[in-house]
Amino acid sequence: MIRFDNDYNTGTHPAILDALILTNDVQQPGYGMDSYSLEAQTLIKKACNAPDADVHFMIGGTQANTTIIASILRPHQAVISADSGHIAVHETGAIESTGHKVIELPGENGKISAEQVELFVNAHWNDPTHEHIPQPKLVYISQPTELGSLYSKSELASLYAVCKSLNLYLMVDGARLGYGLASKSNDIMLQDLAQLCDIFYIGGTKVGAMFGEAIVIMNDDLKTDFRYIMKQRGGMLAKGRFLGLQFKTLFDDGLYFEVSNHAITLANKLVEGLRDMNIEFLIEPETNQIFPLLSEAQIKRIQGKYAFYEWEKQDDKTAVRFCTSWSTKDEYVESLLRDLKENA
Amino acid sequence: MIRFDNDYNTGTHPAILDALILTNDVQQPGYGMDSYSLEAQTLIKKACNAPDADVHFMIGGTQANTTIIASILRPHQAVISADSGHIAVHETGAIESTGHKVIELPGENGKISAEQVELFVNAHWNDPTHEHIPQPKLVYISQPTELGSLYSKSELASLYAVCKSLNLYLMVDGARLGYGLASKSNDIMLQDLAQLCDIFYIGGTKVGAMFGEAIVIMNDDLKTDFRYIMKQRGGMLAKGRFLGLQFKTLFDDGLYFEVSNHAITLANKLVEGLRDMNIEFLIEPETNQIFPLLSEAQIKRIQGKYAFYEWEKQDDKTAVRFCTSWSTKDEYVESLLRDLKENA
Amino acid sequence: MIRFDNDYNTGTHPAILDALILTNDVQQPGYGMDSYSLEAQTLIKKACNAPDADVHFMIGGTQANTTIIASILRPHQAVISADSGHIAVHETGAIESTGHKVIELPGENGKISAEQVELFVNAHWNDPTHEHIPQPKLVYISQPTELGSLYSKSELASLYAVCKSLNLYLMVDGARLGYGLASKSNDIMLQDLAQLCDIFYIGGTKVGAMFGEAIVIMNDDLKTDFRYIMKQRGGMLAKGRFLGLQFKTLFDDGLYFEVSNHAITLANKLVEGLRDMNIEFLIEPETNQIFPLLSEAQIKRIQGKYAFYEWEKQDDKTAVRFCTSWSTKDEYVESLLRDLKENA
Amino acid sequence: MIRFDNDYNTGTHPAILDALILTNDVQQPGYGMDSYSLEAQTLIKKACNAPDADVHFMIGGTQANTTIIASILRPHQAVISADSGHIAVHETGAIESTGHKVIELPGENGKISAEQVELFVNAHWNDPTHEHIPQPKLVYISQPTELGSLYSKSELASLYAVCKSLNLYLMVDGARLGYGLASKSNDIMLQDLAQLCDIFYIGGTKVGAMFGEAIVIMNDDLKTDFRYIMKQRGGMLAKGRFLGLQFKTLFDDGLYFEVSNHAITLANKLVEGLRDMNIEFLIEPETNQIFPLLSEAQIKRIQGKYAFYEWEKQDDKTAVRFCTSWSTKDEYVESLLRDLKENA
Repeated sequence: MIRFDNDYNTGTHPAILDALILTNDVQQPGYGMDSYSLEAQTLIKKACNAPDADVHFMIGGTQANTTIIASILRPHQAVISADSGHIAVHETGAIESTGHKVIELPGENGKISAEQVELFVNAHWNDPTHEHIPQPKLVYISQPTELGSLYSKSELASLYAVCKSLNLYLMVDGARLGYGLASKSNDIMLQDLAQLCDIFYIGGTKVGAMFGEAIVIMNDDLKTDFRYIMKQRGGMLAKGRFLGLQFKTLFDDGLYFEVSNHAITLANKLVEGLRDMNIEFLIEPETNQIFPLLSEAQIKRIQGKYAFYEWEKQDDKTAVRFCTSWSTKDEYVESLLRDLKENA
Repeated sequence: MIRFDNDYNTGTHPAILDALILTNDVQQPGYGMDSYSLEAQTLIKKACNAPDADVHFMIGGTQANTTIIASILRPHQAVISADSGHIAVHETGAIESTGHKVIELPGENGKISAEQVELFVNAHWNDPTHEHIPQPKLVYISQPTELGSLYSKSELASLYAVCKSLNLYLMVDGARLGYGLASKSNDIMLQDLAQLCDIFYIGGTKVGAMFGEAIVIMNDDLKTDFRYIMKQRGGMLAKGRFLGLQFKTLFDDGLYFEVSNHAITLANKLVEGLRDMNIEFLIEPETNQIFPLLSEAQIKRIQGKYAFYEWEKQDDKTAVRFCTSWSTKDEYVESLLRDLKENA
Repeated sequence: MIRFDNDYNTGTHPAILDALILTNDVQQPGYGMDSYSLEAQTLIKKACNAPDADVHFMIGGTQANTTIIASILRPHQAVISADSGHIAVHETGAIESTGHKVIELPGENGKISAEQVELFVNAHWNDPTHEHIPQPKLVYISQPTELGSLYSKSELASLYAVCKSLNLYLMVDGARLGYGLASKSNDIMLQDLAQLCDIFYIGGTKVGAMFGEAIVIMNDDLKTDFRYIMKQRGGMLAKGRFLGLQFKTLFDDGLYFEVSNHAITLANKLVEGLRDMNIEFLIEPETNQIFPLLSEAQIKRIQGKYAFYEWEKQDDKTAVRFCTSWSTKDEYVESLLRDLKENA
Repeated sequence: MIRFDNDYNTGTHPAILDALILTNDVQQPGYGMDSYSLEAQTLIKKACNAPDADVHFMIGGTQANTTIIASILRPHQAVISADSGHIAVHETGAIESTGHKVIELPGENGKISAEQVELFVNAHWNDPTHEHIPQPKLVYISQPTELGSLYSKSELASLYAVCKSLNLYLMVDGARLGYGLASKSNDIMLQDLAQLCDIFYIGGTKVGAMFGEAIVIMNDDLKTDFRYIMKQRGGMLAKGRFLGLQFKTLFDDGLYFEVSNHAITLANKLVEGLRDMNIEFLIEPETNQIFPLLSEAQIKRIQGKYAFYEWEKQDDKTAVRFCTSWSTKDEYVESLLRDLKENA
């Protein structure tokens, strides 16, 4: 079985394995106070052109989202998300378990707009019963989104401007940020992103690491006591060195960008191959997740040999999700395209 | 600097590194449904002689404790712990953050007794205002305790019997279980433990793994929907394979017991060496954490060169904590003993 | 100003004032163990034909909803509600503050159907990622709904049957239950309701009492330790006697039904008067909340003199909400109708 | 049976009944926006000499404590209390249910000192593992305490000074504040109290009202969005008028102080009577709760005829609790003293 079902189906980049071996016997302090974590923080702040940022490492996306949101909001406050947002759909109510409502705005290709947020938040404050309604205080977006789409720089700038003017915070879930940065259609560099939100994270789990997300706190208001809350949420690893070491490796020589480019190159190749077969897409492909509309016959030809996710029905077609990743091999893509075509 | 400050200051056992390398390119499903996790579950159930147990892997102790306790208790119920228990002291209120009070009973060498629990719980039910007081429903102990001491089989059996008779659950935090099992004074085998509690976990982080705790659910009542709550608490890893692979490696050929024995052999050697210097102990040493009472002069002789934890003052001595681990080297112990003695 | 803006704008029924005066000097035990509460429980169980029910008194709807839901659900479970449901809209995220997601299904006139629930819950269990999604376990409806509409007996029976077959609980918020029972179109008697759900409450605050809701627990599974959770949620009054006394008064001689009938008679009179002016309704009026569509001119004629709520725009009309209540006076309705008509 | 078991065993002061009757038909807006609440707020701010305070009314002590604490603390922060504090003992874990640990310091006669708080909080910040421990941020005391004792003005001033210097907030639970103010040994006037803490509340339930506590927020930092959190915690009554009306009545003509004085006069009479019998006290009596040490024979003489609480054994005596209140009658005290003495 060749897996295109997600971008976390293999282990980790060989450079990370090498780093593990090289440092294995070195004794280090625990809980993120090791030298690798310090180096990784420095490298990430440099890559973001954000010398004053705070950088913390956590193990996964649900944990990062939960910790960030719990850290920011008072009990009566809520977070706004696209209805397709990971926190709204796929975290078993982790945000609600911290006491906060996720307000779902209808997404367009997984994105919400500055206008939507402005309308919603103004409506809250104009409602005479607003004290009876959770108060919107934080906007959550993903770059790329759950559907693989990207915010443009101007869209993000508008969203952030609205947040500032309405006294909201903006957080960006970058679980697949590398793949967004590598996209041809992307115009938001890492340094831009850092300037256009209050807090974001750079995903490792899906971009070459064994696991780990690097949280970057830009807004000083959100820095206080973050490590207490990480600990409380089970997110401060005794052997934090493993988180630091991985991000040090990924950001040392541009490896993060290199492996991201690899995945996007293969995604582009896959898209082109599918277009050559006149296959259309549920959503215009931009990153490493693509959603082609396949016929029943096409699905039958690849079923069993390839793992992929059946996303939703569209008339007589089915939108499926194929993911490439830092570890996808060229021959996987070629084989998939060949098998789809065969006997067509 | 040679570190005796804790048992998580190096990387991981070489056999685990080897397994990582060997399996790195294999594609696997996510979220703990990989073949390594399945194999590890089978091995652990066999080691526990518990074919009907449910086994789950989580990343660390705080996460395991929080998930287990949140899963078991209704909102008005509380967990009983020794006042030195990890959940009572060192998890930044993680248990309270799930809504539950930690009821602290005064520990003796880190342990609480069946009699204490019985007295306390009976007092609750006999109090006419008991509905105004959190209801004790779960007893939390560690084996070994935070102070390195061990419950005997008869102590544990009494505690469990009291729990059953009072309709309480008993959970055992085994973050350092391996070191307990390897102790000369231990009489609770893994199979015994499984029969003498409702739920426990086998620590990996401190016993050879990079990270990870294996939760073993013995009581059927506690099995339902555990994975939902793991996910909600940020504890279901996308690359769950890494948890499974480590426990498969540790339990494949008795490696877990072997590395535990190593740490205990060196702890015993250290204890003997200290006794030869007429050094006394705060608590009778049983496992890999030992608490010798050192003079100011002795502390000065080793400060700077060795990392260790100053635990508490006792008259003119200071109890310090030395930890050995699976990765402690024989020469570290020899060097420490030599430096302590030197110029004495 | 004459208030039609809600059904809680005056004090309490004179019979309750009389009871307060009569019993004021009597010493009673606290926390709901007084003799009035015991009598009220007996009367309510009799009225519901439910001798084995547990009856508890709480101060208001948000408190009752929060306590019931927190009492029933495990951490990963969620409650299903119409998107217009009080818990979804107007309780400042009280349900989320207990850790649980409110799953909103699109309501029709404020109601959700057995089919909707069945489809949604089956989809949950058929989703291969269901462990990543809050688990639906409880269905919340109001009778009457937030929009004044009523479930028919057959609708409720279907909903309850679906809940039973899918292992869900059904709760009914009866904050305005009296007005539902008094409606001409209602076919669910109090005794029926008790048989067609697991837990419900009978509202006092809006139906003649100073404050208070009587929770009736029909399902034995939901009875255990309810008073602990009431206390934890701040809902066990030191002077619980006042809750018991009010419900004793309301259920002693059918007063609850009498005052409900009064409100409905006046609502019907208001509806007829409005129909005579060819005014249409946003929702077919069934209970004490009615939503006529008024022109701008009509609104101007009554603004300032009458309090009412502007609900939503519909083309060139505005749907407003008028509420009658147990204390609305005949002459208020007559005056309102006269003023609406005047100069028309 | 004559009840000395608590101070909430009768109804309400006749002046409050009169006010209820007088205003019953007046239509008012809901949720605390009624004119009585506005008047009561003004009266209370005047009585506290605190024109800039925010005043809110809630139904009871558990609700007030929970709302205040949830409103103030971030997730990793904890509240410090005497181990006998109501939040530590008798609220079924309500504080923990909002996610926060209650740190219990050993009380002396129910009180904690500035020195204790200073030592504890400094120890927190000096602990190198402090991020693993809940962060103390708020100090909770009661005036009078659960044991009827009183803080002196100099004790309170010291405590508040320490709080300010350590960046902590100080809250005062005044469930029985009136009885404290009326005590002969009290030197903290209402206006002093307002200057010596950040937030406090004035209890009504136990001091003449049917129910209700008036929260006074002195520190501007704690004012924002308090009503949202009241609503979320089920504490914003639809008929908030009843809370406002009661406090308006109690503070209109000094009634609150008058009824408090009545209870204290009778408590003093009871204390003197007991002293005449050479009865000693567990705690020096200061307010309306007194704890005489009775012999078995004495207890037998009054059992059955009088309700009181057996507090704890002291050698061959039992400390019992007698409460007087605004509604205790002179003849009750005389009768109790007579029956205790009889046949002695």
